[in-house]
Amino acid sequence: MTARLGVTYHVRSDAASIEARAQAIAVEQSVEMPLEAIDEPAVLRDIVGEVQSIEPLDDDRFAVRIGLATATIGHDAGQLLNMLFGNTSLHDDVVLHDVTLPGALVAAFGGPRHGIAGLRQRVGAGRRALTCSALKPQGLSAERLGVLAERFARGGIDYIKDDHGLAAQDYSRFEDRVRACAAGVARATRATGHPTRYVPSLSGDLNAMRRQVGVARASGLDCVLLAPLIAGFANMQALVAEFPDVAFFAHPSLGGAARIAPALLIGTLFRLVGADAVIFPNFGGRFGYSPDTCRLLADNARAVRDGMRASLPVPAGGMTLQRTPELLDFYGADAMLLIGGNLLLARERLAEETAAFTRAVAAHDYR
Amino acid sequence: MTARLGVTYHVRSDAASIEARAQAIAVEQSVEMPLEAIDEPAVLRDIVGEVQSIEPLDDDRFAVRIGLATATIGHDAGQLLNMLFGNTSLHDDVVLHDVTLPGALVAAFGGPRHGIAGLRQRVGAGRRALTCSALKPQGLSAERLGVLAERFARGGIDYIKDDHGLAAQDYSRFEDRVRACAAGVARATRATGHPTRYVPSLSGDLNAMRRQVGVARASGLDCVLLAPLIAGFANMQALVAEFPDVAFFAHPSLGGAARIAPALLIGTLFRLVGADAVIFPNFGGRFGYSPDTCRLLADNARAVRDGMRASLPVPAGGMTLQRTPELLDFYGADAMLLIGGNLLLARERLAEETAAFTRAVAAHDYR
Repeated sequence: MTARLGVTYHVRSDAASIEARAQAIAVEQSVEMPLEAIDEPAVLRDIVGEVQSIEPLDDDRFAVRIGLATATIGHDAGQLLNMLFGNTSLHDDVVLHDVTLPGALVAAFGGPRHGIAGLRQRVGAGRRALTCSALKPQGLSAERLGVLAERFARGGIDYIKDDHGLAAQDYSRFEDRVRACAAGVARATRATGHPTRYVPSLSGDLNAMRRQVGVARASGLDCVLLAPLIAGFANMQALVAEFPDVAFFAHPSLGGAARIAPALLIGTLFRLVGADAVIFPNFGGRFGYSPDTCRLLADNARAVRDGMRASLPVPAGGMTLQRTPELLDFYGADAMLLIGGNLLLARERLAEETAAFTRAVAAHDYR
Repeated sequence: MTARLGVTYHVRSDAASIEARAQAIAVEQSVEMPLEAIDEPAVLRDIVGEVQSIEPLDDDRFAVRIGLATATIGHDAGQLLNMLFGNTSLHDDVVLHDVTLPGALVAAFGGPRHGIAGLRQRVGAGRRALTCSALKPQGLSAERLGVLAERFARGGIDYIKDDHGLAAQDYSRFEDRVRACAAGVARATRATGHPTRYVPSLSGDLNAMRRQVGVARASGLDCVLLAPLIAGFANMQALVAEFPDVAFFAHPSLGGAARIAPALLIGTLFRLVGADAVIFPNFGGRFGYSPDTCRLLADNARAVRDGMRASLPVPAGGMTLQRTPELLDFYGADAMLLIGGNLLLARERLAEETAAFTRAVAAHDYR
């Protein structure tokens, strides 16, 4: 008996073809060759994918569950993605919908090193939701971004993340930006007493990101942001293992919602690879996620499972201050609201508007 | 005047909304915030994306061309992907269709270091198409894979690539596999005189891949395979720069054809980041690409532009020996045909079947 992951795909197909389609996916995501050409019994028994179930979803879509051998993944997060959806992603009528992860696989990857409890502790928050905003636009000098960061922090916000577009550009070097923003936040913290955290965005190859984490730590920071689908899952996995004292925020950039279910990709897989906080487009904002998708995503990020720490759901993307009570009712206290552009509209009154945001979150009735 | 990339998106929208949608994409892929909140004139002038044109495609789809500032990308291939499609990938009614790359950007990335000419030279091929097959299934021992590699090479094939599922698993360590396959191919080459190349598949984080390239070179190899979307574009870029004597094959794993046009992703962007050969699903095989898509992809990979070397198109995926003449007529001599499972069906007669394949390619009339 070989350990297997249960991988569910949603496949558009007619009823007459679905069994053959399911078997083709099982082969594609494992040995990727005609079974008649395999003469090794152990490969046929232990490695070839197994169709475990086929359930109709509606007139022309089926949920197909394939058992894939855990052994084909090893301990590499990139290979996990490769085995789950590598070639099958090229079929535009298949969506990777869900994965049942064996406990041994979860233990091998480890999930968040800090999780919700660690992120709450960093900012001394009790039983309330957390608050976050974003530094932008790209194109501003490091000094101007530092001024913005200070204003956010004077409003008592918990976390300030770089916009994911802020990288290592000629007009805004990572080192300069981190120094200016860390200093701005530190000034505010001395005034407010609130331990606001600045979360710079990593970019480039693994070595560049490793250097950037070093720069961040040298400035007294203990949180960073990266986009797992841009950085590569295996590289995120390496950074999480290498910097156990740093909390990792995951950005959904390149997440291509339509082909991998967001609740799986962002809620489950980003968490598995070690994201302490997962940022995702909230319903009713600029993106098309439904309330159900957002709830399932948040549930996946927070579910008690296999001893893995919970990952903090961070709804974002076109959020407004006015929606704070509604969203806190929806997500509860184990969440962090991220409002970026809507706060930045306040310009010189940024600290005051931010303070209104943090007060609303602190005063909410978390039933 | 700031240098800009022209980025074309195909957007599903009604005619009344398309101008607003286009403007929203221009903002999303640049400053990602309300323009009213930006008080820096240089950001508004040089950084914010510009809607350059909107053309109807059919009843409910439009081609929207956005000018994005090259300065926001810097020299980082990961940031290129982030700026082209990061957040907009989360809208399931938008496809990243095409990019016009300024010459300076092409020069910064550099494209293939060897390209078609280098890959032809490695195997001493004159004016004919090249041949390739794939080692599989995963789950076979290194020794058995080595035997398969030797049989392929005895059939006179040009390139033998690892299946992209072959990673660093407990049952098949990279080192063991490379040693066994390189030795098998070397034995065949001594017999045939044909300099067949074995192309092992890299996996894991950047450091792991770097070690693997070292192992490959120590075994006398000068070609490797990786999947840019799994490895991360920036990490591929780093490896290409670090190992200028090694030729890189790019695998489309996780390419999610439906959301980034395959001709752009595989033909243009993989090439830009340094792929000497680009593997893609051929029309009429197991995947849904059309002949037009395949032709455009191959054209993008081979187009003369900005002094960049041509990348070798490698159609693959459910190909058969019988289709060789048809495909050579279609792709011409500047291509490499990859037949995997269909050759492996020959089992003990693998070398003979491979020889039939290589003879067909050598004997073809390349008009």
